[in-house]
This record gives sequence, structure tokens and C-alpha cells, in this order.
Amino acid sequence: MPTKTDYILRSLQKIRNKKWEFFIISRIIHALDDDEIEFVTQQYVRKNDGAYALTDLYFPQFDLHLEIDEPPHEKEIQKQKDTLRTRDLVLATGHTIERLKTLKEDGTLKSLPEVRKEVDAFVDKMRIQKTMISDFLPWNFETRYSPEPVIERGFVKIADNVVFRTQIDAMRCFGFKGNGWQKGAWKIPDSDCYLWFPRLFEHGMWQNELSEDGKVIHERAINSDGRASIAKQRRDISEYPNRKAIVFAKAKDALGYSLLRYVGTFQPRMTETHPDVISFDRIKTCEKVRI
Amino acid sequence: MPTKTDYILRSLQKIRNKKWEFFIISRIIHALDDDEIEFVTQQYVRKNDGAYALTDLYFPQFDLHLEIDEPPHEKEIQKQKDTLRTRDLVLATGHTIERLKTLKEDGTLKSLPEVRKEVDAFVDKMRIQKTMISDFLPWNFETRYSPEPVIERGFVKIADNVVFRTQIDAMRCFGFKGNGWQKGAWKIPDSDCYLWFPRLFEHGMWQNELSEDGKVIHERAINSDGRASIAKQRRDISEYPNRKAIVFAKAKDALGYSLLRYVGTFQPRMTETHPDVISFDRIKTCEKVRI
Repeated sequence: MPTKTDYILRSLQKIRNKKWEFFIISRIIHALDDDEIEFVTQQYVRKNDGAYALTDLYFPQFDLHLEIDEPPHEKEIQKQKDTLRTRDLVLATGHTIERLKTLKEDGTLKSLPEVRKEVDAFVDKMRIQKTMISDFLPWNFETRYSPEPVIERGFVKIADNVVFRTQIDAMRCFGFKGNGWQKGAWKIPDSDCYLWFPRLFEHGMWQNELSEDGKVIHERAINSDGRASIAKQRRDISEYPNRKAIVFAKAKDALGYSLLRYVGTFQPRMTETHPDVISFDRIKTCEKVRI
Repeated sequence: MPTKTDYILRSLQKIRNKKWEFFIISRIIHALDDDEIEFVTQQYVRKNDGAYALTDLYFPQFDLHLEIDEPPHEKEIQKQKDTLRTRDLVLATGHTIERLKTLKEDGTLKSLPEVRKEVDAFVDKMRIQKTMISDFLPWNFETRYSPEPVIERGFVKIADNVVFRTQIDAMRCFGFKGNGWQKGAWKIPDSDCYLWFPRLFEHGMWQNELSEDGKVIHERAINSDGRASIAKQRRDISEYPNRKAIVFAKAKDALGYSLLRYVGTFQPRMTETHPDVISFDRIKTCEKVRI
């Protein structure tokens, strides 16, 4: 696991392919100079209008994204597309998305002093906003991905950006006491809930996806093994019709580390008829922890 | 030709392979925030003790180099070695070389706040130094490599970091009025001087090198074409024993652009006996322009 220092250094280094983005983001981080503020470079988000985007800088404590408009090279666009689908996805409902443009209205490039001035104004605004968040929690890198603060708060909530590094950490929030677990799901004892850790992109025998509004997961088999699993799941669903899935979606963060993000609690749709697909409807955006 | 903005952005982007260097240099440039100060990332220098080094940040107006001690990866060391020899070489005689260490005395990594504090102290010192340079010339990117300011000053001087982009620009300082020139040397009319544009590293039939103290150039042939050229040059030397070479060494800058740097005025050694070699002794470190 990396340290906060590793994280900060690698986050800056990660954006090296776009020179404007590097200049602007390094300026923001150096000018802000506040290690209490968490930032994520290249955060994959689903925006309020349903569109996907890779925002250049994301401040989880502020529900704030910054997009830097830099004319991208074709090659970079392709590269982004290739890696996008495995990425951690934030549902940006209610988030603010700001844009910093490197081009003027007439399409010509702004001067460096102009861009600097805009960046510095953005940083000033961030500083003021920080003082206005009444329940501001300083960025603690060591506990950022550990279950303890979540257990202490008492619930997992989409809006809280609950993210873990391992399945075990997610399971601890629901009473798991063991040391190892390899399967893609875990049933909470004495409960009709289970934790499900799907990849919400094509992987192996699955082509799962989360709907644009975040409210439906389609689990889709793409080969015979997958179809056999779907058939078995259908039998389970008829047998236990009240079973609910607390879903932590598997993904990679901007630095390539695995993470699991809470995307809601879901229940399978009983009316599904396509033999290759089971759809799950979101029934909750928050779940009480159980210890 | 790039603009100053391109230059600044690309200079930062260039150092992307080392995450500490990236963090520290971007912090220096953003904190300094002074476009009058020229900086060069990854400047190849020959230090006062004769050793070669790639300094991480060079401020020509201050004769100041910063080296960032970051434990390099083997791969990077090799990569540096591979590219070093084609690089622009500054003779750092009289220059200041400062070090910024990312490791503590005991070999452990400094904390990010510790490194930040040292970087900020370095920047403060630079600001003070700038006010103390009485003949400080603001960095003018447009004229940085053009012959006009040199012609106005009246001389080319090693200590002034005289650098041109093209042979023609160097030749203009000595009266050339034409538009094109492809050869590796140009004789100044009505004079016993010529401009010589050698590569001071192995290239084609030559393995030329500048001695560690910058006082001798060895022109060494490595094949029969080279040896034929050496023989011809020897005949010229006996015929015109007073001929002097005003030498602009060909190299690449940190961004890969070609440049020509004045390294002195040289005269061939008459006593050389090795058939493959002609040695040239530096007789001047400054040359008056002729227009």
C-alpha cells in the first residue's frame, strides 16, 4: 500500500501525458499546499446528464471536479477509451463540475499568465469553500480505505464515497471476522443480504454494467459458463426471493490500485425473461453497518 | 520553433520519469512564478572537478544548478547514459551547484512537508539573488537564441552562454549575409578564422571530444573517410598555420531541439603526430563579433 507521499507524487506523475493538465494540476496542488484536502487525478465519473467523463481533478470532500480543456491528441483519446472501462466510477449526482479552459473563445491559446490567474482564483475559492464545509473531515490517508471510520459512522452511503481496498474490509463492516475470502460474493450470516463484488465492465464470462442513472445493474453472461451461472442464480432467486445484494463494484483507481466502491443495495428483478441476463434494481443508497 | 509557453510546459513534462524531481521542480517553477528567470531542466554540465553530470535544473542567469538527489532506478541511469553524449554541454566553471536531498542522513525518505520547506527556502534565496544581479537580463524567449542581442553586445563569450539554433545565426555574428549554409565549417572572408560546428561526441566518421577542462578538442577519425579528411586538414594546416577555429558545438537541448553552443576559439596543434587525430588548443574564451 502506498503512503500519502507516494500517492501525491504518483498522482502528479500520472498526468504527465498532457502538458497543460500537468502544469495546471501541479500548480493547484502546490498553491493549495493543504494535505488535509484529498485529491484524485483522472477520476472516472458518470455525470448528472448520464454521460461518462474522466475528470482531471476530483476533490471528494468537496464533491467537486475540475475538467481542464486541452485539445487532446487522437492517440490520447483512444488510450483513455481503452482504460476507461476498468476504472473506478463515481456517480456525480449533485457534484459540481468546473471547467478550466486553456483556449480563448476564438480558439487561440490563452497566455500562461492568464491561465495562472484563473488557476490561482480557483485555488482561492477552494480555500474559502473548505472553511464553509461544517463537517469537513481532514484527509487521513492511512484510514481513507479502512473500514474503521465507516463502522464508527454507522453506515455505508453512496454520497460518502465509501471505498475499500479489499473485499475483507467491506465485509468487516457487516460482521465478517475471518482472515480470507476469495469468492465474488459473501452472504451475511442470519440475514437475507449478501455482499456482491462485481466488475461493472466486461470481464471473463460477464458483461455487467451499471445503468446511466446508477439505478440498475445488468448482469449479462457472454458464454455458456456464464449462462449456466445465470440459470443457477435464477433458481436461487425463486428460492430466496427477498435476497438483496449490497454491491461494492470492483475497479482500479487512477494509480492502478484495486478498489471497491459502494454503489448501492440491489434486488434482482423477478420479471426478467432474457436467458442471458439478470437485472438488479437499486433499492437503497445507504446501508447500516452490522458488527 | 516553440514559444516560451511551449518551452515551460514541455520542460516540466520532460522530467516526468522521476516523481520527486517532478514534484520539486514543478513546485519551484510555480512558487518562483517569474517568467523573467530562464530555466533549463536536465542540463548536461561538466563540473569544476571535471566530472560530467546531468543537473536537474539550471538557471543560466544565475550560473546556478540544482541537483535533486533521488534514488534513481537502474533503467533510468542507463537511459541517461544513452542520451547524455548527444546533449548540450555547459562548462560549469565558476557555477554554483546546489543539492536538494530527498533522503535524510540515515537513508530514510524525508517527509513531504520537510521537502516542501527546503524547496520554498531555495525559491526565497533565488528571489533575493535576482535582486542582487546588477546586470540581470530578463529572459526573452524570442531573442534567446537569435544573433541580434549578441551582435549588440559586441562579442561571443563562453561565460555568457551563447547559444544559437542554426549555423546561419552563428555566422551572422561574423558577417555572413546569405540565406543558406550546409557545411560543417565556414571561413570568415578576409580573415584567418573560420567557424567550425563539430559534434563533440561520436558521430559518423568522427569521434570528437572536448577535454574535461574544456581547453582541448580532439578530432579523431574512426574510418578511412575520416582519415582522408584528417590528411587533407593537415595539408591545410601547414599551408595556413595561423588559421583559427571559432567553435560552436552542435548538440540537442533538453527538449530535443538542435543548438550550437560557443565553446571557445581553437588553434590546431602543429606537433600532433598520430595519423587519426588532430588536437586543437583553446586560445580564446571570447570573440569579437564582426558585421
